[in-house]
Amino acid sequence: SAPLFAAAPAADEPIEVIRPPQNINLGMVELGKKLYFDPRLSKSGFISCNSCHNLSMGGTDNIPTSIGDKWQQGPINAPTVLNSSLNVAQFWDGRAADLKAQAGGPIANPGEMGFTHTLAVNVLESIPGYVREFAQVFGSGKIDIEQVTSAIAEFEKTLVTPNSRFDQWLLGKADALTAQEQVGYQLFKSSGCVACHNGAAVGGNSFQKMGVVEPYKATSPAEGRSAVTGQDIDRFSFKVPTLRNVEMTYPYFHDGAANTLTEAVDIMGRLQLGRTFNAEENASIVAFLKTLTGDQPSFTLPILAPSSDSTPRPKPF
Amino acid sequence: SAPLFAAAPAADEPIEVIRPPQNINLGMVELGKKLYFDPRLSKSGFISCNSCHNLSMGGTDNIPTSIGDKWQQGPINAPTVLNSSLNVAQFWDGRAADLKAQAGGPIANPGEMGFTHTLAVNVLESIPGYVREFAQVFGSGKIDIEQVTSAIAEFEKTLVTPNSRFDQWLLGKADALTAQEQVGYQLFKSSGCVACHNGAAVGGNSFQKMGVVEPYKATSPAEGRSAVTGQDIDRFSFKVPTLRNVEMTYPYFHDGAANTLTEAVDIMGRLQLGRTFNAEENASIVAFLKTLTGDQPSFTLPILAPSSDSTPRPKPF
Ligand code: HEC
Ligand code: HEC
Ligand code: HEC
Ligand code: HEC
Ligand SMILES: [Ca+2]
Ligand SMILES: [Ca+2]
Ligand SMILES: [Ca+2]
Ligand SMILES: [Mg+2]
Repeated sequence: SAPLFAAAPAADEPIEVIRPPQNINLGMVELGKKLYFDPRLSKSGFISCNSCHNLSMGGTDNIPTSIGDKWQQGPINAPTVLNSSLNVAQFWDGRAADLKAQAGGPIANPGEMGFTHTLAVNVLESIPGYVREFAQVFGSGKIDIEQVTSAIAEFEKTLVTPNSRFDQWLLGKADALTAQEQVGYQLFKSSGCVACHNGAAVGGNSFQKMGVVEPYKATSPAEGRSAVTGQDIDRFSFKVPTLRNVEMTYPYFHDGAANTLTEAVDIMGRLQLGRTFNAEENASIVAFLKTLTGDQPSFTLPILAPSSDSTPRPKPF
Repeated sequence: SAPLFAAAPAADEPIEVIRPPQNINLGMVELGKKLYFDPRLSKSGFISCNSCHNLSMGGTDNIPTSIGDKWQQGPINAPTVLNSSLNVAQFWDGRAADLKAQAGGPIANPGEMGFTHTLAVNVLESIPGYVREFAQVFGSGKIDIEQVTSAIAEFEKTLVTPNSRFDQWLLGKADALTAQEQVGYQLFKSSGCVACHNGAAVGGNSFQKMGVVEPYKATSPAEGRSAVTGQDIDRFSFKVPTLRNVEMTYPYFHDGAANTLTEAVDIMGRLQLGRTFNAEENASIVAFLKTLTGDQPSFTLPILAPSSDSTPRPKPF
């Protein structure tokens, strides 16, 4: 069939453009956005989803491992929620099938929000503003955790980041990338990075061993995918992270041990491909990776309905 | 002089309407907004101004005393930043003259953000996005803490909440308040609350003893204004809090010991005025107080420029 555009979009590239979210329930999104920002879903009243997946900072906390309830140190680096709807499964080891299955986890995780589903729902049911909004969205006055996680997941579906310079280039704007960035992209393809980092999210669609050619000396005991499959062959396999917005999601790797993209690219080259990039090659790849930063989610800070006299009070200490 | 409106604004009321902010430097506001939301101004990389003065929640954290660096328990309830530009001075004891003087405090307070001004400025100077924005706003590439606190204070000047139902009533919309709310307002005036809670912020403009008629049994050792003046007569004097948005700024009092407005109004009546309100009177005053909730600041969540390779990394643990 004939190309639709004068400057035809690159059809045979291993990376695809991110499309704006489709088939969105807007009422659920607005409710889910409030829940995402609401620290009353945590035991302390202090920690919300946005504490660890800060949408001002690429959907991450930019620290090696997260700070949870009572300042507990988390076991693993918090992945970005940006474009997480494109993931084959959620978490580094893929133990949650989708965003809805994932969203219940942190609320009840003693090391994260430290609450229970029942207590979280009790809090929401005591807040007239939420009761009305759940009724509006779900057509029922009774709140349950299924509704909570559905609404959060629907909000997360909107957290895609289209319109990066790389996507503009894919869509035919030839001068959207500098010469160096184009060299970086060619190297990213020719040296084999695209074997694992491909598709719309430039990752997120498979589990792969960390340390294919040379073992990775992690600073954490996580063993990845084998925790889910029980298979020895899956030890040290992790979900390949999306490289979308990777400029904003430092530090890198599941243990957050690499501070810079320079370091992460060097490690990937050596450990996954047995290839040592020289400084110029490394810089070109890094320059390319920075073209994957897309439009960040843009919305008005949600205002949360106040608690009522009967709202169970948080337990911060 | 002749009234300007058919329904003339009430001219002789002790409470004045909140006016939208005047004389605002918009570039500084945008920069200050980013700084307000940036946890990189803290040692841990986790705590921003918005952590404790959450603009989704009335500019407070809604817990009795704040959670600071390493989950330290703060000594006193975090007051709202909403309308804080109207305060005679900042902090419960008024130890900071204005918002600019205040803003340096939490960054370097070991129990709050746990950082130093030098380290905070070093972080900002390592972030190209900030260097450009400071240069644009201040006309100089060199960042200093004066600029940081000026920008935050300018942002805070925008955090006023005009257009409450009470203000609409003051401006002549007679049906903006229900009968009960009007009864509550009359009681608020006739019983003497307005002696201390008056002006545009319905408070914030004087220091007054907590426990005029009967002593207050605080759950914290804070002694208030005497810490600043050294005068025995100022023991247990605190800045009178604004009652604007008081529906959202629970729990109440400097120790956060009162969970509900019902409780706070009862305590105020007895301790400050020697008056016990019956349930109906109390409910009317509470209903009036809820009409003081104004338009909450509405703005797009700021996106923060990413750190660079040379940015000093946070120390969360
Ligand atoms: C205390 C920090 C913390 C809080 C709070 C938190 N998360 Fe996470 N989140 C993490 C960490 C750490 C992981 C990775 C865990 C793993 O893979 O084992 C994660 C993983 C995820 C993932 C999977 C992303 C991927 O690519 O695999 C999603 C989606 C997510 N969180 C959403 C949320 C939502 C929604 C909330 C609130 C209901 C939330 N998180 C609260 C730290 C946190
Ligand atoms: C064999 C599969 C595979 C190949 C080939 C591969 N990667 Fe990766 N990549 C991964 C996996 C798996 C991770 C996560 C590893 C971990 O965190 O332990 C990862 C992580 C990364 C990260 C860090 C992302 C983050 O958010 O933490 C970057 C950057 C990266 N890869 C870039 C590259 C580049 C550049 C190449 C080519 C030089 C490459 N990768 C080749 C599988 C691969
Ligand atoms: C860890 C919690 C915490 C953090 C972080 C924090 N504050 Fe505060 N803030 C408080 C507490 C508690 C008080 C009251 C202290 C007192 O009066 O002695 C306060 C007081 C204030 C006041 C005075 C309000 C009034 O009416 O007196 C302002 C304004 C303010 N903070 C703004 C900020 C800004 C700007 C930042 C960031 C640079 C910030 N705060 C960071 C907890 C915090
Ligand atoms: C003599 C001065 C004075 C009078 C009269 C007074 N107040 Fe107060 N009010 C204060 C002070 C001072 C505080 C803060 C006390 C503290 O936190 O220790 C306060 C606090 C409050 C609070 C809690 C605000 C917050 O954010 O913590 C409410 C509500 C309140 N007053 C309502 C009233 C009502 C209603 C009346 C009349 C029945 C009244 N006040 C009379 C001085 C006064
Ligand atoms: Ca990361
Ligand atoms: Ca309060
Ligand atoms: Ca907006
Ligand atoms: Mg989160």
